[in-house]
Amino acid sequence: MNLRYVIRELGLVMIVLCLCMVAVMGWAAQNWAGGDTDERLAVLALLMSAAVGAVVGLACWLFGSRSGQDYLGRREALLLVAMSWLLGAALAGLPYYTWAWIEHTALVDHIFGSFSACYFEAMSGLTTTGATVLDDVDSIPKGLLLWRAMTQWLGGLGIVVLFVAVLPTLGVGGKKLFQVEAPGPTQQGVRPRIRETARILWLIYLMLTGIQILLLKLAGLNWFDSVCHTFATLATGGFSTHNASIGHYNSWTVDMITIVFMVLAGVNFGLYYQLARRRFGTVWRDPELRVYLGILLLATIIIGFSIYGKTSTLMNGEQRIVGVAEAARQSAFQTVSIQTTTGFSTADFDLWGFVPQAVLVTLMFVGASAGSTGGGIKVIRIMVAAKVMFAELERVFRPHVVRTTRVGTGVVDSEMKQAVLVYILGIIVLFLLGTMALKLLEPAGTLDFTTAATASAASLNNIGPGLGLVGATHNYGFFSAPSKIVLSLLMVLGRLEVYAVLVLIRPAFWSSD
Amino acid sequence: MNLRYVIRELGLVMIVLCLCMVAVMGWAAQNWAGGDTDERLAVLALLMSAAVGAVVGLACWLFGSRSGQDYLGRREALLLVAMSWLLGAALAGLPYYTWAWIEHTALVDHIFGSFSACYFEAMSGLTTTGATVLDDVDSIPKGLLLWRAMTQWLGGLGIVVLFVAVLPTLGVGGKKLFQVEAPGPTQQGVRPRIRETARILWLIYLMLTGIQILLLKLAGLNWFDSVCHTFATLATGGFSTHNASIGHYNSWTVDMITIVFMVLAGVNFGLYYQLARRRFGTVWRDPELRVYLGILLLATIIIGFSIYGKTSTLMNGEQRIVGVAEAARQSAFQTVSIQTTTGFSTADFDLWGFVPQAVLVTLMFVGASAGSTGGGIKVIRIMVAAKVMFAELERVFRPHVVRTTRVGTGVVDSEMKQAVLVYILGIIVLFLLGTMALKLLEPAGTLDFTTAATASAASLNNIGPGLGLVGATHNYGFFSAPSKIVLSLLMVLGRLEVYAVLVLIRPAFWSSD
Repeated sequence: MNLRYVIRELGLVMIVLCLCMVAVMGWAAQNWAGGDTDERLAVLALLMSAAVGAVVGLACWLFGSRSGQDYLGRREALLLVAMSWLLGAALAGLPYYTWAWIEHTALVDHIFGSFSACYFEAMSGLTTTGATVLDDVDSIPKGLLLWRAMTQWLGGLGIVVLFVAVLPTLGVGGKKLFQVEAPGPTQQGVRPRIRETARILWLIYLMLTGIQILLLKLAGLNWFDSVCHTFATLATGGFSTHNASIGHYNSWTVDMITIVFMVLAGVNFGLYYQLARRRFGTVWRDPELRVYLGILLLATIIIGFSIYGKTSTLMNGEQRIVGVAEAARQSAFQTVSIQTTTGFSTADFDLWGFVPQAVLVTLMFVGASAGSTGGGIKVIRIMVAAKVMFAELERVFRPHVVRTTRVGTGVVDSEMKQAVLVYILGIIVLFLLGTMALKLLEPAGTLDFTTAATASAASLNNIGPGLGLVGATHNYGFFSAPSKIVLSLLMVLGRLEVYAVLVLIRPAFWSSD
Repeated sequence: MNLRYVIRELGLVMIVLCLCMVAVMGWAAQNWAGGDTDERLAVLALLMSAAVGAVVGLACWLFGSRSGQDYLGRREALLLVAMSWLLGAALAGLPYYTWAWIEHTALVDHIFGSFSACYFEAMSGLTTTGATVLDDVDSIPKGLLLWRAMTQWLGGLGIVVLFVAVLPTLGVGGKKLFQVEAPGPTQQGVRPRIRETARILWLIYLMLTGIQILLLKLAGLNWFDSVCHTFATLATGGFSTHNASIGHYNSWTVDMITIVFMVLAGVNFGLYYQLARRRFGTVWRDPELRVYLGILLLATIIIGFSIYGKTSTLMNGEQRIVGVAEAARQSAFQTVSIQTTTGFSTADFDLWGFVPQAVLVTLMFVGASAGSTGGGIKVIRIMVAAKVMFAELERVFRPHVVRTTRVGTGVVDSEMKQAVLVYILGIIVLFLLGTMALKLLEPAGTLDFTTAATASAASLNNIGPGLGLVGATHNYGFFSAPSKIVLSLLMVLGRLEVYAVLVLIRPAFWSSD
């Protein structure tokens, strides 16, 4: 294990985070200069946090640079990835904590006064979960909200680069199936190839970001809201700048733009690369894309029928009898928001009754496509598991018939099948452990099973809101500090697809061979 | 597919059931002659049912005998097994229905007046589940209660013979691992070998039955109660002849005898065969036996600590502060009862709070050993899955290291791993589908999630009682007829380890090749 190299790269990650903080600070300083005095504290908090981060980051970088070696192996990559999120969240949460500390005299009991809450909020951003501890988002300085939005955007970009460019190239896990034909030249070494692929993904991400910001601006949002909601949409994060989430605007146009970009963010980014190369056929025939869109459509229809003709409470508190158009709109928005693991809301789906909730909770686990910014188990894994389970039924009465399992044109080998089945079981086990941990860590009788289970599921699958006390109109602020740490761990476990974090607790991972 | 052969054997199964009915009827007739006039209707009901069954059974046998062929292939065996339970339950439920029909004038609204309730009760017996629709067991004629107890005993014997003797010999599924070295001579053909093994298992089962009946009689129970509770214990069924279940006796001795025999019933019956051959080492080193006992002990300790010092409500309604001895007793009894999937109760564990309930629900899914009369996923599958999941963690950073997964001295091949993972996932999927079906089939708002989920889990894993409305002091009578059918299907799916039933819905199973 080349620890020094990992430390050096970790230092770089921190320095990048600090540069982003400084950029946000610049914007907030401009607002402050423009007369928005609330921003003064945000500027100070961001500045102080960036300074701390820069010192630590530079120290790591200098310490690590002395190693001279430049080798990125599997274990180094896994450790770097896990630590980037685990430590990155501590740095990203610093501005919240610093702000509450400066604000102390005025807001003695602000939730950000507890570091576990800041860590939770930052981890929620970097893992693109979008669960918040804030009960009044509108009261937070814009500088901090922009930083909060940006953590999601950085996290989303990081995940796409990681799962489309870095991990498959390193051959980590059985990722081959999840890869839509490696983009970038293949005759080069590992690092140049990763760089080239990452560059393309970065450009695609940037382009989508630009387009959505413009569209939201045209739909009537101000630049700040456009930018923040775009960051939250493309990263499938779900942080809003308003308490009523997207429901704040109560606008068909904003809803539709958000739906389209949530769907786009839940697609394998490798497919955009194929589009850029005009390989439309590859995209059109992609089996995961078809099933992903099919599930979205089916769930929208089921939920639409279930809420049609009933009363739905919008996020702004308005009660509305749901007609055909409204059923389609609310159902499509919430289905897309949950399956892509974004977590925006336009209506309080906690009041929708059993069928819509059962569908939504199922979608939480299904999740978006592999190689997207979305979380969850991922559509392709569900497809593989379904095919394997179906095939197993035949093996009972025809044990000697050997059939190849295919997804599209790709053959699923037995190693991949096992990896997928283990992954799904692992997610279920983590979900149950998370639920139990929350029940045990909170005072007896305060946490109902629905809240505990959906908080665990929504964190592990990087959604954001759940049901009950963590429903669309509520937040995670009431959890005790240990519970917030558990939820943060669930987020990072789900985001990094479990292994990258769990391997760290295996002694063999650290042994020198 | 040799359908005629299946029909002939099915006829035999029905004739055997009828002979057992006649035996029970003989006992009831003796009671009637002895002055117990309640038994008159039971005698009539059993006689009429046996007559109907005998006619249908003989017709099937005669029709099937014309085929001349005598071939038992995989598909024939699977179809025979599935139909034995699905049709057997209809026949076994007939005495209940007939009784309610004769009794009609007096008991207009008796629950057995609905055939779905009778089918449920009979399926619950034959699958050794032990869930009942009766709210007042004590009011039912003894003849019917003995028949009810006997359905469990027959079902338990059938399952042991099936999973230890028949299926492994036919090579169905990947059952090799679950087999403790095939008992019986191996140089013969398939049918003689199955017969020989079945004979040994039958003797072991009979011997254990005799011993427990004697012990319970010595502990002060009358012969009727001794026999019925022995049938329910060794089959891990759980039907009692009293509303308060084993709690009716409130006796340390009865509790301890029941605990020991529940544990024995949850052991792979192949191991008793090894004991009979004085192969003590094989038994002592059996990895599943060790883990099975280890889980029982661990869960007993956890639950014991959780209920210690609190108030526990016994099944007879008595409230008792739980001291050390009482904690050990109640905890051991309930742990053993749930993990072996028996379902007896001595205390109302529905009032025990979160930790004991979480442990008990987990145990419902873990279940007993393979090759026992118990249900659930089975300890050995949990062991294999845990090992595979742990090994998968290593593969992430050492993809080229190939390690053999072992359970004890047996090597788990990749086919077996996949079968185990698929099985566990399948059980989870069926459990969720069952829960949703119950929620949808019952009137909105009448069924809480805990009741729906634990009813589904307790049926699928063949336990009996769940939590909430199906807790230890309640029953399944309130479910609508469609829900009772769903629950009956869950029972038979769990009992026959899913495949034997699910393959029937695959068209390829029926095709002629």
